[in-house]
Amino acid sequence: MSNKKQKNSGVSADREEIRRHSLSHIMAAAVLELWPKVKFAIGPAIENGFYYDFDFGKGKIGEEDLIRIEKKMEEIIKNDLKFEKFELDIEEALAREKKVGQTYKVDLIKELKAKGEKKVSYYRLGDFEDLCRGPHIKSSGIVKTNAFKLTKLAGAYWRGDEKNKMLTRIYGVAFPDPKELRRYLAMLEEAGKRDHRKLGKELDLFCFSDLVGPGLPLFTPKGTIIIDELRKHIEKVCSNYGFQKVITPHLAKIDLYKLSGHAQKFKEELFHVSSGRGHEFVIKPVQCPHQTQIFASQPRSYRDLPIRYMESEKQYRAEKTGEVGGLNRVYAITVEDGHTFCRLDQVKDEIKILVNIIKDFYSALGMWGKHWVSLSVRDYDHPEKYIGESKDWDKCEEILEEVSKEMKLGAKRVEGEAALYGPKLDFMFRDALGKEIQIPTVQLDFATAKRFGLTYINEKGKEEQPVMVHRAILGSYERFLVLLIEHYGGAFPVWLSPVQVKIISVGEKHIKYCFELAEEFKKNDIRIEVDDGNETVGNKIRKAVNEKVPYMLVIGDKEINSDKLTVRDRGEKQTRTISKNGFIKEVRKKIEEKK
Amino acid sequence: MSNKKQKNSGVSADREEIRRHSLSHIMAAAVLELWPKVKFAIGPAIENGFYYDFDFGKGKIGEEDLIRIEKKMEEIIKNDLKFEKFELDIEEALAREKKVGQTYKVDLIKELKAKGEKKVSYYRLGDFEDLCRGPHIKSSGIVKTNAFKLTKLAGAYWRGDEKNKMLTRIYGVAFPDPKELRRYLAMLEEAGKRDHRKLGKELDLFCFSDLVGPGLPLFTPKGTIIIDELRKHIEKVCSNYGFQKVITPHLAKIDLYKLSGHAQKFKEELFHVSSGRGHEFVIKPVQCPHQTQIFASQPRSYRDLPIRYMESEKQYRAEKTGEVGGLNRVYAITVEDGHTFCRLDQVKDEIKILVNIIKDFYSALGMWGKHWVSLSVRDYDHPEKYIGESKDWDKCEEILEEVSKEMKLGAKRVEGEAALYGPKLDFMFRDALGKEIQIPTVQLDFATAKRFGLTYINEKGKEEQPVMVHRAILGSYERFLVLLIEHYGGAFPVWLSPVQVKIISVGEKHIKYCFELAEEFKKNDIRIEVDDGNETVGNKIRKAVNEKVPYMLVIGDKEINSDKLTVRDRGEKQTRTISKNGFIKEVRKKIEEKK
Repeated sequence: MSNKKQKNSGVSADREEIRRHSLSHIMAAAVLELWPKVKFAIGPAIENGFYYDFDFGKGKIGEEDLIRIEKKMEEIIKNDLKFEKFELDIEEALAREKKVGQTYKVDLIKELKAKGEKKVSYYRLGDFEDLCRGPHIKSSGIVKTNAFKLTKLAGAYWRGDEKNKMLTRIYGVAFPDPKELRRYLAMLEEAGKRDHRKLGKELDLFCFSDLVGPGLPLFTPKGTIIIDELRKHIEKVCSNYGFQKVITPHLAKIDLYKLSGHAQKFKEELFHVSSGRGHEFVIKPVQCPHQTQIFASQPRSYRDLPIRYMESEKQYRAEKTGEVGGLNRVYAITVEDGHTFCRLDQVKDEIKILVNIIKDFYSALGMWGKHWVSLSVRDYDHPEKYIGESKDWDKCEEILEEVSKEMKLGAKRVEGEAALYGPKLDFMFRDALGKEIQIPTVQLDFATAKRFGLTYINEKGKEEQPVMVHRAILGSYERFLVLLIEHYGGAFPVWLSPVQVKIISVGEKHIKYCFELAEEFKKNDIRIEVDDGNETVGNKIRKAVNEKVPYMLVIGDKEINSDKLTVRDRGEKQTRTISKNGFIKEVRKKIEEKK
Repeated sequence: MSNKKQKNSGVSADREEIRRHSLSHIMAAAVLELWPKVKFAIGPAIENGFYYDFDFGKGKIGEEDLIRIEKKMEEIIKNDLKFEKFELDIEEALAREKKVGQTYKVDLIKELKAKGEKKVSYYRLGDFEDLCRGPHIKSSGIVKTNAFKLTKLAGAYWRGDEKNKMLTRIYGVAFPDPKELRRYLAMLEEAGKRDHRKLGKELDLFCFSDLVGPGLPLFTPKGTIIIDELRKHIEKVCSNYGFQKVITPHLAKIDLYKLSGHAQKFKEELFHVSSGRGHEFVIKPVQCPHQTQIFASQPRSYRDLPIRYMESEKQYRAEKTGEVGGLNRVYAITVEDGHTFCRLDQVKDEIKILVNIIKDFYSALGMWGKHWVSLSVRDYDHPEKYIGESKDWDKCEEILEEVSKEMKLGAKRVEGEAALYGPKLDFMFRDALGKEIQIPTVQLDFATAKRFGLTYINEKGKEEQPVMVHRAILGSYERFLVLLIEHYGGAFPVWLSPVQVKIISVGEKHIKYCFELAEEFKKNDIRIEVDDGNETVGNKIRKAVNEKVPYMLVIGDKEINSDKLTVRDRGEKQTRTISKNGFIKEVRKKIEEKK
């Protein structure tokens, strides 16, 4: 889902986007002045800024060059150069770019030609002329000085494809005025500290291996604890609402996905599996088709419905090799996925149940309320992107509209964001840094059951098609872990903390008591770690602070000789004294209340 | 692991095997008399009997023909025909089989020729002459009458390969005397009732789908409950012993397995993964290499060891297409796998811990005591089948011998059964029907850490290699489920029963109270199902009996108006009366004690 739907800024989305796009041209013009032989690829506006991909040939540029480029850009802005549009016949444009050796532009023009375009448009800014659809600001002076900043250099494959040449991407951020820029940069600095790759490594939550390959995270014991706690929680919540857990394999014949429509939709993303013994399978890119087969394995009666399946299994998608990174974009996605098979007269209640589950779950995380709901409907101009019949789609949209009204969700219609098989309610939250994220979703589907020939016997003894409702509560565990890490800056709530209590021995003679305490805590299902190392207490505390452990207990003579514990709470410099049983009760309460 | 290692019978294994193999020839001779144009494939002895694969061409035979064949076999036995061995030059044998159109024998001889054989041996029995290594009994009269029986017809691909022709396999069972045969057939009848495919369908535990494909079971809610309970139990037990759960992906670059040695060992069984975007991976056939990468992701100190990882994830092996069936042989195997990384001075204690885990686990199932232990060592004639250095192997064997002695395991050395990387202790149990099964194993491995360059910093600040110990407690969940289903005949102990209590309403007016009860039981983590159907109580009870639910509660006027419950226990015809709280306590106790 794109973040473009709604903007927080008072400035209209379009004007801001145009300014940022124009800044990418201003940067390209500056780069051309400094490196006259540079080749240009593409330079779009992005959220909060812009980038441009350059090919510097054999020359290399470094972070220090960004300041030179910025200066040159400020000059262009001061000179208030005009953005002038002109059109060229496509053949002429092609000849022109070939002549000056702008190979990436040649590629782009060839593509437009293949699509049947006859003319292409260019924008001129001083000496810099660029193939571009536009639109742009009138002149460079419209950009305020000190309202943009070049932030970083990165490698980026042409077309995002590993097989192509690695280009140099220069990123910039841009805002209407310097104040907004400063605010954003401060936020960025905070985000850097919270970056999930950095914290994931420091807190030892997950790792990657060159031998295993990119896009395939391995979860260490600590990361696994968080995933397992989330899984147990979501399974508990959903099981209270009648969801039953199932397990399906990762492979299937491609026929399964031809029938569901996913083989077409995920053509590029499908992993194909074969063996020297002649096997041919694909790896599941989604869970729903497998689950339909469990529904289909027994005769069902109207009395059995709704039947609700849930599953927390990995699915695999062949993302572009150049695009995987961290936990945000991976090949192996562990999806917490659920499907309800129900009667038409149960659909509305079912959707309400699912919305309530979402509400409960995100309220506990303190995110409910700071959200908006998208009623994501089809792209009416491109019906070929979807499966199912038009009248069913209309009916589905109507039901979702009604639910939104009755539950006061205030859902806004967003066209073109529907799922393959039906419209949906998407819930858009903001994390601690104000970044918009879309995770939970409730999707209505009249098409899949039809395609798979799923039926139940109705009250009149006749076969009828069930309606499917797809839902995700926390979505993929990988992306949810990113959200949690960055939202909490690694200081997880007690129930999710891999180590809940760190017991620190003052000296050699206190170690035995530390382990006795540890045993007692373990019996109360509290996750502890004993630091009995040969270091100073100060050092041990510093380590525990860096590990962001919620509670530290320092165990010395005083603690051994009484029933009291000295507790240092996360984020506090002062310690406090509490009875052992009182402490255990306190921690258990936090765990049970998911605090 | 083969079942041939130890036989229960007083007769020596070899003599019995020879007799059974000879019976396959007697059957083939009988078939030749009845269908002179039949083609012969192969006919070995198997556990408890024998089979022969025939190609009847366009003719088909049915179960009713088995009696005709048996009669003809009894004639051959009565006539006491001699088994006569003779040798042929391999070219002569080839020409001879080609001439009579015995194409399968031609295939077999060609293979022997490719291996460099110059001569082949034949056995003659009356008119039937068969390419065969032997040995055989002296004459057919040695078989006692009524001591064998042809049991079934089955389809079997030539060479077990789906791409080849489907042959007709005739199975027989054979014992030294008629009494043993009768005892075996009675056991077989019981086993038929307990067959996991039959019960798996009846109890709705798992299913297969033509769209998903063979060898890929889907676990329904009820089957998933059993797997989840087992998983939670094993994780709890192992976590008490310091095991930490990790999660690793199903894919990896093949490099990982080239380094571990599995790419060679599992060459045929490897599933290869690719995408239109140029990705190349394999699916993991084992878990250990992935887990080494978590160990390798951080620096480790001697103080950190032992580090113990466990995982319950699916691995995939491309079994021969003709051989998959039920849950015993699948492509998707969920393996409960664990690895310890420890110092050399910790190895012996570690193995003892693992043996104790196994002892605890199988004692709870009532299987400990009826077992023997195999010290599975390498095949000394074929060192090329293993990785690692000979002196390390010797050291490993020595350690396992010592553990066996100190723990009084009485392990018997079995050559050729070691793992790729080291010797192991295998625990052989018998299920309720007396069938031998090998599941738990403890494997010592000096080789893998070396290959992966795994190290820790020892007390002197120097790098040292850890020792790896591989262990499986319940092995694969699929095969363990087969064991449980067949061991308990589907009447699972309470803690594993998908539905623990069935609440049956007598009439319409009792339904409300049934659901109130259900809520109360649910709060006590008791799995219930309410049967509020519009049927007679007798019918509802019959259904619950077939579902093998441990407790049935019949709820009528009496129960509504008192605090008592009427309970019918599984396997009992009489009901009993108990207070509601007393019943909840009783069920909870069974669950907690894993009864």
